Amino acid sequence: MRPRVSVYIAISLDQCIARDDGGLDWLAGVQDSKEDYGYAAFMATVDAVVLGRSTYDTVLGFDSWPFADKRVVVLTHRPLTPRFGESVHAGALAPLMATLASQDVRRVYLDGGVTIRQGLEEEIVDDLTLSLVPVILGGGRPLFSDGLPESAWRLESAQAYPSGLAQVRYSRR
Amino acid sequence: MRPRVSVYIAISLDQCIARDDGGLDWLAGVQDSKEDYGYAAFMATVDAVVLGRSTYDTVLGFDSWPFADKRVVVLTHRPLTPRFGESVHAGALAPLMATLASQDVRRVYLDGGVTIRQGLEEEIVDDLTLSLVPVILGGGRPLFSDGLPESAWRLESAQAYPSGLAQVRYSRR
Repeated sequence: MRPRVSVYIAISLDQCIARDDGGLDWLAGVQDSKEDYGYAAFMATVDAVVLGRSTYDTVLGFDSWPFADKRVVVLTHRPLTPRFGESVHAGALAPLMATLASQDVRRVYLDGGVTIRQGLEEEIVDDLTLSLVPVILGGGRPLFSDGLPESAWRLESAQAYPSGLAQVRYSRR
Repeated sequence: MRPRVSVYIAISLDQCIARDDGGLDWLAGVQDSKEDYGYAAFMATVDAVVLGRSTYDTVLGFDSWPFADKRVVVLTHRPLTPRFGESVHAGALAPLMATLASQDVRRVYLDGGVTIRQGLEEEIVDDLTLSLVPVILGGGRPLFSDGLPESAWRLESAQAYPSGLAQVRYSRR
């Protein structure tokens, strides 16, 4: 048994997750100190976070480490000095998931564009929560890319928030 | 006063509106003879349809002409012999909208990928209804493209349908 693999990410209407330079300023319009769009509830069900190196480097710049009490695996081929107990993995995700399962990890949060696409490529993503931010950026880093295998999903819910964010949740068919 | 300009279109989760060859087979999973996802109600408010040549050629292949009782304008530089009273336009959309307004057209349905992008480029789209089809195609004809001007939208509603289609409606901010 491998862990359940989950994606939870904000995208523009033209399915970008960041500007070309990595900028996230366009998220400001939906950031709300009183509304986390289910993030805390989602994270409470997650045992491990698997993220790409560039997402990791971004997160290191935050005021505080957001993954305290989670197992964290950084996908990278480059050296890394763990600061919060994080470990490193390179290569396919499937063997990593097998290892995590043996360590009693039940649910994995896959984060970062490259990592999410790798999960979709390996067809190991079990659920997908997309928070649609009501902007068309007209350019940036796309979440999906040409060449991903075709996949069908089951819609679990669609929810409108007062900020203008629409969240759609899917599980793999 | 120009008419209200509306977009109403089905897209995959990776924001494609057709496969590379124009194929729409992936829509089959959400096609339902008892559910039109608000299309008839939307069309009842539309006075004119403005569509690109390739969408027009596709529509001509349908069993029946779907735009009876609507003013139809085809965007094309190539010759066209009207079969249902359709007229032709080439060039920017703004002057066409002015002409349509003078002909008592209050709301225009903009259809076809190239035409919709042109409307977004000219910043004349007033509302956007996106029907998210629960598939990742992994390639095809994208609705949005790099180089569109950045735009912000107001979420009007998000609705989940039993078929798995999620419809989000936006108006321009």
